[in-house]
Amino acid sequence: MNGADALIETLIDNDVVACFANPGTSEMQFVSALDRQPRMRPVLCLFEGVATGAADGYGRMAGKPACTLLHLGPGYGNGLANLHNARRAFTPIINVIGDHATYHQKYDAPLASDIHAIAGANSVWLKSAASADEVSALAAEAITASYGPPGGSASLVLPADTAWSPTNATGGKASRPAKAAAPASTIEEVARRIRAAAKPVILLGTGACNEAALQAAGRIAETGVRVLSDGFIGRLPRGAGRFAPDRMMYFAEMAVADLAGVDLMVLTEAKPPVAFFAYPDKPSVLAPEGCETLPLASLAEDGAAALSAIADLLGAPRAPSVQPLKLPAAAPTGALNPAAVGLAMAHHLPEGAIVSDDSVTAGQSILNATRTGRPHDWLGLTGGAIGQGIPVAVGAAVAAPGRKVVSLNGDGAAMYTVQGLWTLAREGLDVTVVIFANNAYRILGIELGRTGAGNPGPAASKLLGLGEPAIDWVNLAKGLGVPATRCETAEAFDAAFARAMAEPGPKLIEAVVP
Amino acid sequence: MNGADALIETLIDNDVVACFANPGTSEMQFVSALDRQPRMRPVLCLFEGVATGAADGYGRMAGKPACTLLHLGPGYGNGLANLHNARRAFTPIINVIGDHATYHQKYDAPLASDIHAIAGANSVWLKSAASADEVSALAAEAITASYGPPGGSASLVLPADTAWSPTNATGGKASRPAKAAAPASTIEEVARRIRAAAKPVILLGTGACNEAALQAAGRIAETGVRVLSDGFIGRLPRGAGRFAPDRMMYFAEMAVADLAGVDLMVLTEAKPPVAFFAYPDKPSVLAPEGCETLPLASLAEDGAAALSAIADLLGAPRAPSVQPLKLPAAAPTGALNPAAVGLAMAHHLPEGAIVSDDSVTAGQSILNATRTGRPHDWLGLTGGAIGQGIPVAVGAAVAAPGRKVVSLNGDGAAMYTVQGLWTLAREGLDVTVVIFANNAYRILGIELGRTGAGNPGPAASKLLGLGEPAIDWVNLAKGLGVPATRCETAEAFDAAFARAMAEPGPKLIEAVVP
Repeated sequence: MNGADALIETLIDNDVVACFANPGTSEMQFVSALDRQPRMRPVLCLFEGVATGAADGYGRMAGKPACTLLHLGPGYGNGLANLHNARRAFTPIINVIGDHATYHQKYDAPLASDIHAIAGANSVWLKSAASADEVSALAAEAITASYGPPGGSASLVLPADTAWSPTNATGGKASRPAKAAAPASTIEEVARRIRAAAKPVILLGTGACNEAALQAAGRIAETGVRVLSDGFIGRLPRGAGRFAPDRMMYFAEMAVADLAGVDLMVLTEAKPPVAFFAYPDKPSVLAPEGCETLPLASLAEDGAAALSAIADLLGAPRAPSVQPLKLPAAAPTGALNPAAVGLAMAHHLPEGAIVSDDSVTAGQSILNATRTGRPHDWLGLTGGAIGQGIPVAVGAAVAAPGRKVVSLNGDGAAMYTVQGLWTLAREGLDVTVVIFANNAYRILGIELGRTGAGNPGPAASKLLGLGEPAIDWVNLAKGLGVPATRCETAEAFDAAFARAMAEPGPKLIEAVVP
Repeated sequence: MNGADALIETLIDNDVVACFANPGTSEMQFVSALDRQPRMRPVLCLFEGVATGAADGYGRMAGKPACTLLHLGPGYGNGLANLHNARRAFTPIINVIGDHATYHQKYDAPLASDIHAIAGANSVWLKSAASADEVSALAAEAITASYGPPGGSASLVLPADTAWSPTNATGGKASRPAKAAAPASTIEEVARRIRAAAKPVILLGTGACNEAALQAAGRIAETGVRVLSDGFIGRLPRGAGRFAPDRMMYFAEMAVADLAGVDLMVLTEAKPPVAFFAYPDKPSVLAPEGCETLPLASLAEDGAAALSAIADLLGAPRAPSVQPLKLPAAAPTGALNPAAVGLAMAHHLPEGAIVSDDSVTAGQSILNATRTGRPHDWLGLTGGAIGQGIPVAVGAAVAAPGRKVVSLNGDGAAMYTVQGLWTLAREGLDVTVVIFANNAYRILGIELGRTGAGNPGPAASKLLGLGEPAIDWVNLAKGLGVPATRCETAEAFDAAFARAMAEPGPKLIEAVVP
């Protein structure tokens, strides 16, 4: 047994059984060791941003980490943006980062760089193995760290000689630390303050959006207290039978108006909400003036239990407020736009579907339309780094076989990690990729005005538009092995989406929208 | 005038006139300011790795920096790998990294991350503007820093409010520090030692591979001293009329054998050569045992002048050893393989062509075939991070209009930054992209054995092969607006390559090779 064997055995023994990989020379021992460990599922990704995004999607759905296999500092760099998103989703991930052999590092070979600096910003844990004997224990430590709470990506740097050298040191055991209970005194104080407030609201962060937390929040909603969630949630169970918190508005002035008169905001595994971006003469903070923010459960505490206790203290009924099943009365017709896509999705999205959302400006229409749809999970763009829609869908499909996955993407966003289409084909994953083809970074046209930069002139227009040449998504997908259709009307999209929901396997639908 | 205007004016006034951009909300003021400054050429890239690689290619050919426009930490992360390569090529680049407004940073909004940690590893200079008034002076400082010597990428973090706030502070003036002369005493000592050595060699790094340095090295070669270059050079002028240094061998044991008996290695803007990777029981250092390494010029010193002085001291003739013009006697026929591609390229590559090489295992055949071809420049994969072949070609074509650019890519490498094809189409750049479609990370099959990991079994094979499904490069390119051809024979490739050299504009040739 060598260090690579010890690593994979430790990962598997601690239930890390999927590996999203884009290996290089320094990772060859790990690759070879996979041949001796059939319990680990290796998934090749043709770019590291696909591998890290897939690990994020896997972790969100499986509730346990997958590992990535990345090639030194540049390989981690390629995967950095989706690890940024994963950090904001608190997703447990194990990054195995190959490195030069320990004795080779002093020579500053061409691929050498400061991995610790590059990987530090998005890792909850980051260590390098100094010998093969250390690998198993460090892997266990990494897995434990990835669970948090809150979770995050743990990065284990594996110098090539620590992988190829023999070792007998195995058996590292990870643990999964439980979230601490919020103190009873805090819970009682929050309940008292809610009762005393004129217009209290409760804000749920990603950690407080699991089924149990939503159930408790839905009970509280029955007492007349408004419940909101952060704008972007790692995994939000939605649809019929679930409580649907309102979504925090994206633009600060809208959020402040929406929350007018609110004097108390109770934070449940959430930070005080702030604007995604600052704009001249617009507020940074989303709570209105005079509104106090009061933590109920920190990011490391059990928000669901705390909410349940609050519901009891407020005398809430046992049954939460939930959404009815209410599908659109008719299929969409006429012009194709995000609202029509939303109607078609609400019609055809099967129970248990998973939606990976990187649709930027189109997303709100789909959220609105599917609010009372069949129960599903919605995976949001937590960190704002576009390019997670396809990769997260890859990982979700690996984590949840038997569930239909729909990946919603702005065309600009999808181009970031378009390589993920190939992995959908390679693995035969049951993912339908929808591209909102508006031939533009549409959001930036809006943002240009909001930042006080005025209307786009010729140079600016050139940087915001994707139309010259228009991307031909059908050929692009075909080139990567995924069958694709282009839809220009609501009827065509409805039919294509219905077909995609009825048949298994990867598909791409280019939705031509304004 | 606001901070963004001051920045762009300062860039232009200091001859930074091309901007490879993938902007987001925090960069909207910069985008808008481009409308007021038509002297800056904005080039949209659909992924930041294309933007940074393009800036690298531009800098290598123009000898001055372009700027990139990147969106916070994740945007820089997406561009990190090609900035790693640029660091190893000493390419001057100005990265403009948009950030949250200064007053918004304390809120840790979703896109916030530790930009200084992420960007520090590959930046020769890195500062954040604190106010609009600082921007012009910092931009000038960044440009100066980017020139080195040796050069590199300088990163200016631009918080949104420093871009949108008014300022009168402009006029920052950059300077271009000259390389220092190597001390006369060093030069004399090196000449003495060369004369005394039994088998001396001279090693040229990237900085000592310009026309003047090669001319001087070619004179020294006439005295019987062997001259080699590092394996991967940022920009190597090659072909007829140029001196051709031997290339340092890639694998250590081959390099050591090639250098057997060498007792002195003179380093000219080069570090002591080391293996790209370590392998069990193989040396890390490429110089044979007993060989002394002796610096002639450091990375910051003028290698060309020092070589010229050495040539004089050795009594070298005025005329250097140069390659004759010798084209292949016949066009390639039969099976298509890298050697046949090399023959076709040697036939048709026009004078002044630029070759952007990311062809991994296929590259050596092309280098051999074109050694006596028409004069051209060869841009090597300096940092080993694959995915620079198409982006570097984008930048080289922008820097050198009127020169034909050929981009050589392994299929695995090309997938990393395939988005660059769209920019070729958008800008109508005169670039021919060759894809060596062997449906594999071929190099890794070799490396697996070398690292002692044995032959690939089923799991390993799955991670090294790209054949299931095979990527259809013709459709992929068509989807991104680039006309493409698939060639399966030497005759077909020769004809397609001849056509591509004769007609301007972007093209892709999928060369099906074993």
